[in-house]
Amino acid sequence: MADFLKQTWYMIGWAGELDDGVLARTITDTPVVAFRDTAGIVHAIHDRCPHRFAPLSKGIRKGDAIMCHYHGLTFDGAGTCVDNPLGGPVPAACRVASYPAVEQDGMLWVWLGDPALADPALIVRFPWLNDEGLRSIQGYTRVDANYELLTDNLMDLTHAKFLHPGFGGDAYSPHNTMEAGRDTVLSKYVVIDIDNPEFPENAWSSHGNKVDLWDDIQWYAPATLSLSSGVVLTGRPREEGCEIPAAHVITPESAGRSHYFWGSALPKDSPLSNDGFREVLSQAFDAEDKPMIEAAQQRMGEADFWELGPVLLGTDAPAVRVRRILREMIGNEKKSQAASAEMSAA
Amino acid sequence: MADFLKQTWYMIGWAGELDDGVLARTITDTPVVAFRDTAGIVHAIHDRCPHRFAPLSKGIRKGDAIMCHYHGLTFDGAGTCVDNPLGGPVPAACRVASYPAVEQDGMLWVWLGDPALADPALIVRFPWLNDEGLRSIQGYTRVDANYELLTDNLMDLTHAKFLHPGFGGDAYSPHNTMEAGRDTVLSKYVVIDIDNPEFPENAWSSHGNKVDLWDDIQWYAPATLSLSSGVVLTGRPREEGCEIPAAHVITPESAGRSHYFWGSALPKDSPLSNDGFREVLSQAFDAEDKPMIEAAQQRMGEADFWELGPVLLGTDAPAVRVRRILREMIGNEKKSQAASAEMSAA
Amino acid sequence: MADFLKQTWYMIGWAGELDDGVLARTITDTPVVAFRDTAGIVHAIHDRCPHRFAPLSKGIRKGDAIMCHYHGLTFDGAGTCVDNPLGGPVPAACRVASYPAVEQDGMLWVWLGDPALADPALIVRFPWLNDEGLRSIQGYTRVDANYELLTDNLMDLTHAKFLHPGFGGDAYSPHNTMEAGRDTVLSKYVVIDIDNPEFPENAWSSHGNKVDLWDDIQWYAPATLSLSSGVVLTGRPREEGCEIPAAHVITPESAGRSHYFWGSALPKDSPLSNDGFREVLSQAFDAEDKPMIEAAQQRMGEADFWELGPVLLGTDAPAVRVRRILREMIGNEKKSQAASAEMSAA
Repeated sequence: MADFLKQTWYMIGWAGELDDGVLARTITDTPVVAFRDTAGIVHAIHDRCPHRFAPLSKGIRKGDAIMCHYHGLTFDGAGTCVDNPLGGPVPAACRVASYPAVEQDGMLWVWLGDPALADPALIVRFPWLNDEGLRSIQGYTRVDANYELLTDNLMDLTHAKFLHPGFGGDAYSPHNTMEAGRDTVLSKYVVIDIDNPEFPENAWSSHGNKVDLWDDIQWYAPATLSLSSGVVLTGRPREEGCEIPAAHVITPESAGRSHYFWGSALPKDSPLSNDGFREVLSQAFDAEDKPMIEAAQQRMGEADFWELGPVLLGTDAPAVRVRRILREMIGNEKKSQAASAEMSAA
Repeated sequence: MADFLKQTWYMIGWAGELDDGVLARTITDTPVVAFRDTAGIVHAIHDRCPHRFAPLSKGIRKGDAIMCHYHGLTFDGAGTCVDNPLGGPVPAACRVASYPAVEQDGMLWVWLGDPALADPALIVRFPWLNDEGLRSIQGYTRVDANYELLTDNLMDLTHAKFLHPGFGGDAYSPHNTMEAGRDTVLSKYVVIDIDNPEFPENAWSSHGNKVDLWDDIQWYAPATLSLSSGVVLTGRPREEGCEIPAAHVITPESAGRSHYFWGSALPKDSPLSNDGFREVLSQAFDAEDKPMIEAAQQRMGEADFWELGPVLLGTDAPAVRVRRILREMIGNEKKSQAASAEMSAA
Repeated sequence: MADFLKQTWYMIGWAGELDDGVLARTITDTPVVAFRDTAGIVHAIHDRCPHRFAPLSKGIRKGDAIMCHYHGLTFDGAGTCVDNPLGGPVPAACRVASYPAVEQDGMLWVWLGDPALADPALIVRFPWLNDEGLRSIQGYTRVDANYELLTDNLMDLTHAKFLHPGFGGDAYSPHNTMEAGRDTVLSKYVVIDIDNPEFPENAWSSHGNKVDLWDDIQWYAPATLSLSSGVVLTGRPREEGCEIPAAHVITPESAGRSHYFWGSALPKDSPLSNDGFREVLSQAFDAEDKPMIEAAQQRMGEADFWELGPVLLGTDAPAVRVRRILREMIGNEKKSQAASAEMSAA
């Protein structure tokens, strides 16, 4: 069992993925099913019937509850068994864990830790996803790699120069600065005075003029990243250019597999259609990032990242800072857990 | 290595599966190959050549023996090497284990335990499979789940209400009674006064009248189940209705994978064709039961059923009784094995 | 981790496989990438970037080096990082292992052991692969089995009688003699006075006359085999017939998977085309040998060959001699390694 941050919100999916009724994803080795009740409220419960262990996500939404499709036991959002259609008493033990769930900015979040600590205010906001002045898209990529490798990827955007020719290629040699907080790291990239790359040119044309590009990417523990990318004519203030915000949220499924949720938005009047935009991003994340990150994971095998002695370059500073903060947070959680255990034992 | 009952008959296949000459299946982690000799007698031997470990089932039937297709060593039904086509002496150690094998009622059974205990009279009979007054069909489904999960499925037929809409759906809410023997459990289900479900209506029409349904399912250790299902106009004696017998025989391949053999029969004058009947049963077992049972197995992982603390309902009584009897039988086998070992050591 | 001979040359591929720039294969659990520099010299280095562990084989050949496609670090054939396109200092630790590599007779060889011992003169020669009087073909088959099972296959050519009907079938019952050296074994097979089998008949017609066949196969540690096969009219000297040389080189990828390189050659005036010849050999190695060897490996599971107590026949003598010599060589390597370790510790 890998070490994950426990007292935190994990994104389980996009609100739109719930339209069919239920959404099942395994998060930090725990199978979870989310569903919407008749009032539209989202609930998340353990995705395993306590009777014969069928996944409740194979079941049917019935009123405010889910009915197991194997023997009919029906559980509400609190995890309580509210019906045994075959009659007969239902033991008190017949319940499943329920997890705090929040729907916000078109995203669904669950909290698998201590429910008393589940403060929705801790969830990173992406209000622009529903900004009427923008056209937003969402995507999902499942990656056979540890979630920290995906954070590494995002916290060193210089990789675009090599892996994402459409985003810049040879010309993309950004200057980087970093600002680290207690549980956040902000990494800023700028490239000055280059030809506008294929993207964002297709989304915002520079009409043949040179441009400046920026990418401000902010990491929040454990693996939520907010990116502001933009393009502007060289030397002009950012306000005159085009900002393209993006959300990159990574949820560990297990030690070696991750859910990668990505969303972005264009100005309404951008010449790039939503389908075209989705294609651009899918090319980058599904066709370019994913195979490379999975190949690196395969080369690492089961080994710990640090034990392999990675060479550190200047460009790694943000990613390394993120890894260290996260390790410290997980370490602190363990210490406080051990302290609580000792206290209860005393 | 999982615990299996050792001193017992396991079904390896349907007699019809031998037509091509040889039939290979792994039973309780042991690879076995069955073949028919020139007199038509079925033999079963270990499916691994003792020379270079090729599966004998990749070989060629030659007279009363199988010739290994790698280097030609030829073994008869007793496991004796009867030919080395390249000449040269064959060491006495050049033999494979031979297992008692029985062909009966169109089924092939093997005994992997102590041959001295292999009494064919212990094999459950299904004579109706060859009843000239009936039309019988057979099927085979390989399931990625422990064999006891398949027995559970069959010993709680209330699942038809949820998983098999064609067999009853909402209206199917059977009353259950149970009779347990030393190594058998009989579980009886009746539903009174309902509209005839899609099946058996397509096999025996009630012409719009209400019907009573019955399902008497008898388990024999370790996992042979004999089912008598039937339909009759409400309130009339069973003899006036239509009985549909079925055999469900489950053979563990390994701890996590099972062979599921199923057969059933219709009256000759049933409007349902054999192909149509096979489709009805395949829909239930292949398309409905199998995915649900495999999903439950995945949710259980490697964990022991009881250690997961399953919630027990009234409807579980027959399945739970079966599990307990079987655990006791396996436990007794181990004790007597340990006692024998002690005696030999003394 | 399995035991492999370490101080030895392993074939990584055919020279022709490098035309696309880079060739990646895992050898004894070590990922290796081979590439050709601008002068045409072949280099082999560890196929994992020391920065973020991406396979360098996913990179791009750039001058005399390979550029990692993830963040641009560029390594030459000595494993030295010669460029960080993003600028900034590169730590001295930023290097990968480099392996002695040799291109000879159209084959590429690497040495993963102590470079000081890497003597190219130790590599078995196959000069006929480039003989202008012959037409040669090459092939590659990946086999899910331990490499010693492939050597076994080749050191007992009697299996052709059963597994390769095109090479002889029933009539092929060769007489075998063996000559063993310190780290070689030569096994000779002759069949006298038979009808010319399908192959070599299609490559050299006997015009309906009876023929003698020979197969001299020489094993060199760890798994390089040189085969001289031939056909001649019965009773005539070999010089009057047709010799068909073959190379069979097996490189362990891991304990349970092997690279199988095979090449052979026909006289220029043979009626069999190169495509036809490749088809004959692919039928034998890909369609006949590979499935049988993989099936045997599956039956063996993780068990050691000797622990399974294989029955030994007279025809096994060459293969058994090979296995014993190889075990002794690997054992000696370990002893001398232990002795060195002790000496350094003292």
